[in-house]
Amino acid sequence: MRIALVAALVLTSGFAFADEGQWQPYQMPSIADKLTQRGIDIPASQLADLGQYPMNAVVSLGYCTASFVSPQGLVVTNHHCAYRGIQYNSKKEHNYLENGFLANTQAEEPSAGPNERLYITEKVTNVTNQVMANLSNDPLARFEGIETNSKALIKICEADDNYRCSVNSFHHGLEYYLTKQLIIRDVRLVYAPPESVGGFGGDIDNYEYPRHSGDFTFLRAYVGKDGKPATYSEDNVPYTPKSYLKINADGVKAGDGIFVAGFPGSTSRYNLTSELQFANDWLYPTYAKRYQLQIDTITLMGEMDKDIAIKYAGTMASMANRMKKINGLLDGFKATDIVGIKQQRENDFLAWLKKDPNANLKLINNLEALLAEQHTQVQTNYYFKNAQSSVLLTAASKLYRLAKEKQKPDEQRETGFQQRDMKMFKSALKRIDRSFDPAVDKILWLQDLQAYASQPLKTEVFDNALSSANSFEELEAKVEGLYALTELTDQAKRLDWMNKTAQEFETSEDPFIRLAVAIHDTNMTLEKSEKLLEGKLSSVRPEYMKAIINYYKSNNWPVYPDANRTLRITYGMVDGYQSKDALYKQPFTRLEGILAKNTGEEPYNAPAKLLAAIKANDYGKHRVATVYQQPSTWVCKLMSCLDKPADFNSVPVNFLSSADTTGGNSGSPVFNGKGELVGLNFDSTYEAITKDWFFNPTITRAVHVDIRYILWMMDQVDHADNLIKELDLVRN
Amino acid sequence: MRIALVAALVLTSGFAFADEGQWQPYQMPSIADKLTQRGIDIPASQLADLGQYPMNAVVSLGYCTASFVSPQGLVVTNHHCAYRGIQYNSKKEHNYLENGFLANTQAEEPSAGPNERLYITEKVTNVTNQVMANLSNDPLARFEGIETNSKALIKICEADDNYRCSVNSFHHGLEYYLTKQLIIRDVRLVYAPPESVGGFGGDIDNYEYPRHSGDFTFLRAYVGKDGKPATYSEDNVPYTPKSYLKINADGVKAGDGIFVAGFPGSTSRYNLTSELQFANDWLYPTYAKRYQLQIDTITLMGEMDKDIAIKYAGTMASMANRMKKINGLLDGFKATDIVGIKQQRENDFLAWLKKDPNANLKLINNLEALLAEQHTQVQTNYYFKNAQSSVLLTAASKLYRLAKEKQKPDEQRETGFQQRDMKMFKSALKRIDRSFDPAVDKILWLQDLQAYASQPLKTEVFDNALSSANSFEELEAKVEGLYALTELTDQAKRLDWMNKTAQEFETSEDPFIRLAVAIHDTNMTLEKSEKLLEGKLSSVRPEYMKAIINYYKSNNWPVYPDANRTLRITYGMVDGYQSKDALYKQPFTRLEGILAKNTGEEPYNAPAKLLAAIKANDYGKHRVATVYQQPSTWVCKLMSCLDKPADFNSVPVNFLSSADTTGGNSGSPVFNGKGELVGLNFDSTYEAITKDWFFNPTITRAVHVDIRYILWMMDQVDHADNLIKELDLVRN
Repeated sequence: MRIALVAALVLTSGFAFADEGQWQPYQMPSIADKLTQRGIDIPASQLADLGQYPMNAVVSLGYCTASFVSPQGLVVTNHHCAYRGIQYNSKKEHNYLENGFLANTQAEEPSAGPNERLYITEKVTNVTNQVMANLSNDPLARFEGIETNSKALIKICEADDNYRCSVNSFHHGLEYYLTKQLIIRDVRLVYAPPESVGGFGGDIDNYEYPRHSGDFTFLRAYVGKDGKPATYSEDNVPYTPKSYLKINADGVKAGDGIFVAGFPGSTSRYNLTSELQFANDWLYPTYAKRYQLQIDTITLMGEMDKDIAIKYAGTMASMANRMKKINGLLDGFKATDIVGIKQQRENDFLAWLKKDPNANLKLINNLEALLAEQHTQVQTNYYFKNAQSSVLLTAASKLYRLAKEKQKPDEQRETGFQQRDMKMFKSALKRIDRSFDPAVDKILWLQDLQAYASQPLKTEVFDNALSSANSFEELEAKVEGLYALTELTDQAKRLDWMNKTAQEFETSEDPFIRLAVAIHDTNMTLEKSEKLLEGKLSSVRPEYMKAIINYYKSNNWPVYPDANRTLRITYGMVDGYQSKDALYKQPFTRLEGILAKNTGEEPYNAPAKLLAAIKANDYGKHRVATVYQQPSTWVCKLMSCLDKPADFNSVPVNFLSSADTTGGNSGSPVFNGKGELVGLNFDSTYEAITKDWFFNPTITRAVHVDIRYILWMMDQVDHADNLIKELDLVRN
Repeated sequence: MRIALVAALVLTSGFAFADEGQWQPYQMPSIADKLTQRGIDIPASQLADLGQYPMNAVVSLGYCTASFVSPQGLVVTNHHCAYRGIQYNSKKEHNYLENGFLANTQAEEPSAGPNERLYITEKVTNVTNQVMANLSNDPLARFEGIETNSKALIKICEADDNYRCSVNSFHHGLEYYLTKQLIIRDVRLVYAPPESVGGFGGDIDNYEYPRHSGDFTFLRAYVGKDGKPATYSEDNVPYTPKSYLKINADGVKAGDGIFVAGFPGSTSRYNLTSELQFANDWLYPTYAKRYQLQIDTITLMGEMDKDIAIKYAGTMASMANRMKKINGLLDGFKATDIVGIKQQRENDFLAWLKKDPNANLKLINNLEALLAEQHTQVQTNYYFKNAQSSVLLTAASKLYRLAKEKQKPDEQRETGFQQRDMKMFKSALKRIDRSFDPAVDKILWLQDLQAYASQPLKTEVFDNALSSANSFEELEAKVEGLYALTELTDQAKRLDWMNKTAQEFETSEDPFIRLAVAIHDTNMTLEKSEKLLEGKLSSVRPEYMKAIINYYKSNNWPVYPDANRTLRITYGMVDGYQSKDALYKQPFTRLEGILAKNTGEEPYNAPAKLLAAIKANDYGKHRVATVYQQPSTWVCKLMSCLDKPADFNSVPVNFLSSADTTGGNSGSPVFNGKGELVGLNFDSTYEAITKDWFFNPTITRAVHVDIRYILWMMDQVDHADNLIKELDLVRN
C-alpha cells in the first residue's frame, strides 16, 4: 500500500499541472481527490469553512500572513514580516534586531508600534452581481461604476469600524468577492531571534537554496477588556482567537503532503503571451536598469555617509530583493522557453475555440488590440511618472489631490483619499522621515529627471516648471533650489497640509507644492486615460477569461484565480528538485549547514550560543534521525532495511515543498496532512521566480522554516520555556 | 540478491576507508574480496598480471595515461594530454585546436611531434635489496649509494635502447621497484574534437562538477617495418599491441563497480601532521601569493600585447590550474579539519605503538626533528631559489652544470645529466622559445628578485652579482642590461653551449652565463645540504613507515604506497556525492547540460553542429533511458516498477566515481566490472582536492568522460565511421 502510494507520487510528479493552484478556500471540495492523493487527510469541506479550524486561525498582517498558535492570542509569522515591529522597539541600549528579544512574561511584551495590525478574515462573499449592476456601456463610466458599486459594498460592510472590508476582482473582472476582516489594533512583540538568525544569509541567500534562515517571530494580539479591538493600552488583554494551531513537533519528511494558507499578492498566470513578451522585452529590463542605478547610487552615498546607509537600509533591502526577482524572471525566461510554452498553449486554445461555430473570435483580436494600447501607454508614461519620483514631490501631489478630493462627498472620492484611508495616509506622511535624506532623494530624482529629459516622450509641464534648465548643471541648480526652500521636510508642516484647501495649495510659495499643482492636471489626464482603457478591458477581458476557463475545464486542468492578496490555500509535497543538470537540491537543510556557511561576517554571523549548541550536537528532543532525502533512505523507506541509515541525524532548519506560493505568503502556516503546523513559508527558490507567469512543477519550490528549528531555538538556544508551554505541541 | 547487494553498498559507503587506495597491480589479489563486493568480476590475479588483458593495454604518455583500443595501435587518452600534439599540427590554415581533427585514413594521420612518446610497461620488479645494498652509515654517502645502485640497475635494464627504465621509491624508501617500459617513438594524431568540446568550460569548470567536457583524443602508435620502435618515418607501420581494450557501448549506471588504471603522480597520505601543517600554514599560502602575482602580471602584459597572451597561454593555463588546486587544498582544510583528523590518527598510532615494550619511540622524535629541519631548509632556500627563476638563468645554470657533470664518468653523473637524458635536455632547451618572451621573463624575475631582497635570508652571491643595485630602479637597470647583452635567447647559440667546456663558461662574457657560474657553488652547497638531509631521512623514514604499516594492518585498513608516477589500479563505484548541506551532485551529466551552459563565448562555445545535434535530440543508438541517478529511479531499480520512469533519456557526458585518482591519472581508462572500457578519467571535484593528503570517501569523486559521449560524438556529430569500425564495441 505504502509502496504503491510512493510510486504513485513519483509518477505523478512529472505531470504538467501537479500541485499547481492558489485556491480560494470555497474551491477546496472540488480538489478533494488531489488532496487525498497527496496524503492530506483533513476534509476539504473543513478547509473551505473560514469559521472552522484551521482556517479561522490564519490571519493577515496586511502585507504578510500569520497564524494563531495559543488560546492567548499568540501569533507566529516571519521575522522579516515582524521586522518593523522589532525595529520600532530597538534602541541603542537594547538592540533587538541585533540581539533578538524574548519577553519572559506578558507584562514584558512591548507594542510592536501604533501602525501594526492583524486582520482576521471572517467572511468572504461573492458580490459579482452587485459590483456589475447597472454598468454603463461607456468605458470610463463603466470603470467608475465598478468603483462606485464596490465602495458602496465596502461602506455597508465597514459600518462597524472594527472591520476592514475590501472588494477584489478575480479572473480579471469575471468575478468579485467582498472580504470582511476584524482589525486587531494592539499587536505586541513576544519573541524574535536576532536578525543574524532570522535573516541568516541576507541578500546573498535571498531567493536561494540551500537556505538556513530562522525567519520566525512571535507576536501577540491584544484587545480591550470588553474583548473588542482597541488601540494600545496597558489595560488591554490578550485576544482569545476562535481557534489556534496545533503544532506537530515531529514535522514532516520527504514525500509528505502539506498545505499552505495565506494571502498571496499577485500572479499573471492567465495573462496573454503578448503581455509576457512585453514584460520580458521591455518592462523588466527597463526596471532593472533603473533599480541598479539607484542601488549603485545609494551604496556609494552610504559609503560616504554612515547615516545614509542606516536610513536607506530598508529601501536597499527591498531594492535588492526586487533586483534579484527581476533577474530571476529574466534568467528563468532564458532557461525555460516560457514564451514558447505559453504561445503553444494559446495556439491550442485558439484551435479549440475555433471548433465552436458560435465562438466570438473577434474577442481575441479586441483584447490583443487593447493590450497593445496599454503597453504603449505604459511606455509613454513611464519616464514622466518616474520624473515625479522625489518623495517630497510625491507627498505634495498626494496632499494636493487630497484637498481636491475633499471637495467631493466621501463615497465619491478616489480610493486612498476617503475618510477610511486617512489614518494610513497620515502615518505614511509621518513615516517618510525614517528612510529619507534630502541629498539622496535629490540625486535619485535628478537621475529620473535626466532619463526623462533624454527620451522623446516629453510633456510640456516639466519643461515649463523646470524651463530654464538647458543643461544638467542648470537642472541641478534648479532642483537644489527646490530642496533649499521647501518646508515639506518638516513633519509637522507636512501633516498640516492635510487640512488645507485646494486654494491654499494654489497660492503656496513652497516649490514642491507649486510643482505638484503645476503637474496635477497632466496627471489627472493621464489617470483618466488609464481608467478609460481599464474600462474598455473590463468588458473584453472577463469574456476572454470565461472562454479560457471553459478550455481549461475541457482539459481537466485546474482553474483557480490569479493571486490578488485574498485568502488562498495551496497544497503540495515535501520534495527536492533538479536545480541544474546533475545538481539535485534536497528538501531539508541541517543545523550543521549553518556552521559550514558561518564566516562571522554579516550576513553569515550566527550568534555564538547558537553555534555552540550546534557544535555540541545539542539537539535536545528535536533530533531527527531521517527525513528520507537521500536516495539510500528512499530505498529504505520502501524496503524497511534492517539497518536504516540515519541519513540526517540533526535538526532540520528549512525545507522545500512543491506548494504554489508567492509574495504575501510570507509567514504563511505550512500544515501537515492533519492540519497541524509544521513550518512557516518564507521564500521561493531562484528557479521558481518565473511562477509569477508560469507554474513549472519540476522546478517550482517554496522554502519553509521547519517548525523543529523554531522549537529547537526556543528550547536549546533561547530557553523560551514559558512560550513553549503555551503552545499546543503534538507528536506523530 | 540484487537488493541485498545495493543495500550492502549503501551501508558500506559510510566506511572511513571505502574505495581508498592506489594499488600496485601485484597487490590486487590481496583486495579481491573488496573488488567482488563492488561487482568487479574480472579476477584479481588477472589484474595483477601486466602481461595480460587489460593491463597490457594500459600505456603512459610520460605525464598522462592512455590505452590501446584497436589491434592497429589506436590509442585513446584525454584531449588535454594530447594537447601538445594537436597544437604542433595546428596552423593558421587548419587550426585543429579550434576546429578539431579527424584523419579519414591512416595516410592522413600526422606525427604528433618528434618528442611525443608512448611507454608500454612490460615489467615491474622489486629491487629493494639491490638498491639498499652496501649502504654507508654516513647520510650523504647513503644518499649517494641509493642513487648509484639505482643508476646501475637502470643501466642494465636500458641495455636495449628501445626501453626506458626507472627505479622508484615506495613508502618513503621502504621499498624500491624497477619499471621497464618499451618506448614508442612515432606517435600520430588520429582524431581530436575542437578545444571547445575537449576543454568545454575551460578554467571555470576545471576541478568543478557538474561537468560537460569531451576530454578525449585518439592517437596511434607506429613502429618500424620490423615491428620495433622507431622515430617518425613515412615507412613506419601501425604498432600491434599485445592486447587492446573492448569498449562497452552501454556504459555504466549508478552503483556499478568500476576500476581505473594509470600513473598517478604524487600523494602525501602517510605524511605526518606536522608536514600537513607546514603545507597549510606556510607552503601553500606562500605559493599562492607568488602564483597570483605572476598570473596578474602575465594577464596585464597579455592585454597589452596579444603575442604575449598567445605565447603564455599554456603557462597561464597551468598556473590557473595550480592556483585552483592550492585554493582547493586551503578551502578543503577549512571545510574539513583534516589536520585534526590526521593528528587524532597519529595519536592513536602512538598509543598503539607504546603498547609494544620494544617499540622504538625515539624514532618518532628523530623523524619530527628531521622534518622540522627540512621545513626550515625549504623556507630558508625558497626566496633564493625563486631569485633564479629567469628562464635564461635556469638554462645557463643547467648548461654549466652539464659541462661540470661531463667531467665525470656517465654513471656517476647526476640524474638528468647522463647520456640517456641528453635528448630530453636538448628538446627542453629548444622548447623555451615557444613560451618565452624576454619582457615577461624579466618582470617575473624582477618580482622574485624583489621578494628575495625584501626578506632577511640572503646569500652573498646575489649581493655580489647584482651588487650596485641599491634601489629597485638600479636593479631593474642592471637586469635590463643582462637581457640586452645575452645571446641565450638565440636557440642555436643556446644549444651550442651543450658542447662547451666548464672553462669556456667561466671565461664567457654572456651575462647570464656569468651569473650562472657565479651562483653555481652556492647552489651546489645548497643541493648537498638537501641530499644530506635526505640521506638522514632515508634511514629514519622507512622505519617509521614499517611501524605505520603494521598499525594499519592491525586495524585492517588498506595499505598501499603513496602515488609516485608508477602504474597503479584504483577501484570504486559510480556514485554522486553530497557537495554541501542539501546539495547533492548526481553521478551523470547529460547532453542537455551543454546547451544550458553554452553562451557562445569561450569557454562555453560548443560547436554549432554539436549544439544542433543535441537540439534535434539526435541521440542515435547512444540514447540512455536511465542511469538510476534519481531517488525515484533508485526505488524502481529495486522495485521493478511497472512504469520505469525514463529519468535520463539522453546521452551521458561525464560521470563521477569514488575511484582514488590524482594528477597523472589523466587519460586513464575507466573499466566496468568485466574490464571493458566505459570512460576516461580526466579530473577530480573541487572538494576532493585534499585527497592529496587525506582520502575522505564521502566527498572524494573522480570525474570521467563517459564512453557513450565519445561514441556519440564519433557517430552523430563527427561521423568518424572508419574509426568506429576499428573499435571492438560490445554491449551488455
